[in-house]
Amino acid sequence: MNITIIGTGTVAQSLAEKFIALSHNVVLGTRAPEEKKADQIPNPITGRSFQNWYRVNNNVKLAALKDSAQDADLIVNATQGVVSLELLLEVGRPAMAGKILIDIANPFDTSKGVMTICNTDSLGEQLQAAFPETKVVKSLNTMNAYIMTHPESIPDQHNVFLSGNDLESKREVKLLLKSMGWKDEQFIDLGDISTSRGTELLLPIGLRLYAAFGHSNFNFHIQTANQ
Amino acid sequence: MNITIIGTGTVAQSLAEKFIALSHNVVLGTRAPEEKKADQIPNPITGRSFQNWYRVNNNVKLAALKDSAQDADLIVNATQGVVSLELLLEVGRPAMAGKILIDIANPFDTSKGVMTICNTDSLGEQLQAAFPETKVVKSLNTMNAYIMTHPESIPDQHNVFLSGNDLESKREVKLLLKSMGWKDEQFIDLGDISTSRGTELLLPIGLRLYAAFGHSNFNFHIQTANQ
Repeated sequence: MNITIIGTGTVAQSLAEKFIALSHNVVLGTRAPEEKKADQIPNPITGRSFQNWYRVNNNVKLAALKDSAQDADLIVNATQGVVSLELLLEVGRPAMAGKILIDIANPFDTSKGVMTICNTDSLGEQLQAAFPETKVVKSLNTMNAYIMTHPESIPDQHNVFLSGNDLESKREVKLLLKSMGWKDEQFIDLGDISTSRGTELLLPIGLRLYAAFGHSNFNFHIQTANQ
Repeated sequence: MNITIIGTGTVAQSLAEKFIALSHNVVLGTRAPEEKKADQIPNPITGRSFQNWYRVNNNVKLAALKDSAQDADLIVNATQGVVSLELLLEVGRPAMAGKILIDIANPFDTSKGVMTICNTDSLGEQLQAAFPETKVVKSLNTMNAYIMTHPESIPDQHNVFLSGNDLESKREVKLLLKSMGWKDEQFIDLGDISTSRGTELLLPIGLRLYAAFGHSNFNFHIQTANQ
């Protein structure tokens, strides 16, 4: 499958590695591909520059946003939530029309420490409204990049949520995630794209759990009573 | 211990029954005690009227808000979050001074389906600011009333969060919750009262899980990787 990931950060890199390992063709869409390839700034989380990451992952293609998604079978939004809409508009409605967009971004302003969209709206809904011909499925936005791509790293039960208006698209996303190691019993389909309001608001407690634990190697698990 | 619960709804009733079973003296603070005792409106969750509940739980005392907390050793806010501040101001700063207030309310407007406080503030913080001489501990606000008082009803792992500025108060709340059946390993102390911003925002996903499951007999569990 041809998968285009919009973004070049930790999440985009982790997903790209996983998709390549699963024999997909991967394009990373970014504003300035040649500059990005030469980017030597250490990533604040991994400590590795994009240049160094790309040196060992050069089977991933880089493309300018407007050229990144024409041939994609599926698109992943792995940008920062505060700029997702702007960047996806550069990718363009025609290139995204008729395709699934997995939205894994959260609309969080790191400089202010607050959500930029919440309560009465969500990024998932805004993207679906901006790209009516694209099938937006919100998923994977409730955990760190390592757990997204290595669900087996948490041996006990934990969950991944699905929000989206199109049932068939959610089934396809579920199949992709299962190929990445997620198991049937870990999925919770919350309903339509408006349920993104629920999952995006797991970020505020996620950040506080990160502060309390000193690490982000955790995930949410919904434990049900035996009734 | 003398425990005053502000509120008379499902949560207040469940906690009152539990505290009475644990041999505490319980007062429910409400606007109009005599009218409440005669209230025959069926509770939308339990189907039982307050009058019928009170008939079998008449060892609980009812008191007007302004008379409810003078003799309390500990106060619980079990009101609807949208009116908590107003009702607690009727209870009065002097009656609450120097005491622990367990805040289990969420600022959710059921008529509009939105949080009334979120993202840049929380009810927990607003109460702590309004009652600077009271030690506010936010807890139990992330599950239904039955699970609060019957944690053993979920046999597997699940969590209860603590947010508050005063360590000693959090220890006392933890002791009370342990007497109710909560176990050491279930507690997550998130830090100061501002971490209420995290737990109060579990309500939006909680409501969507309720819709997806068709019941609210679940609780959040933070599953950590073995690293």
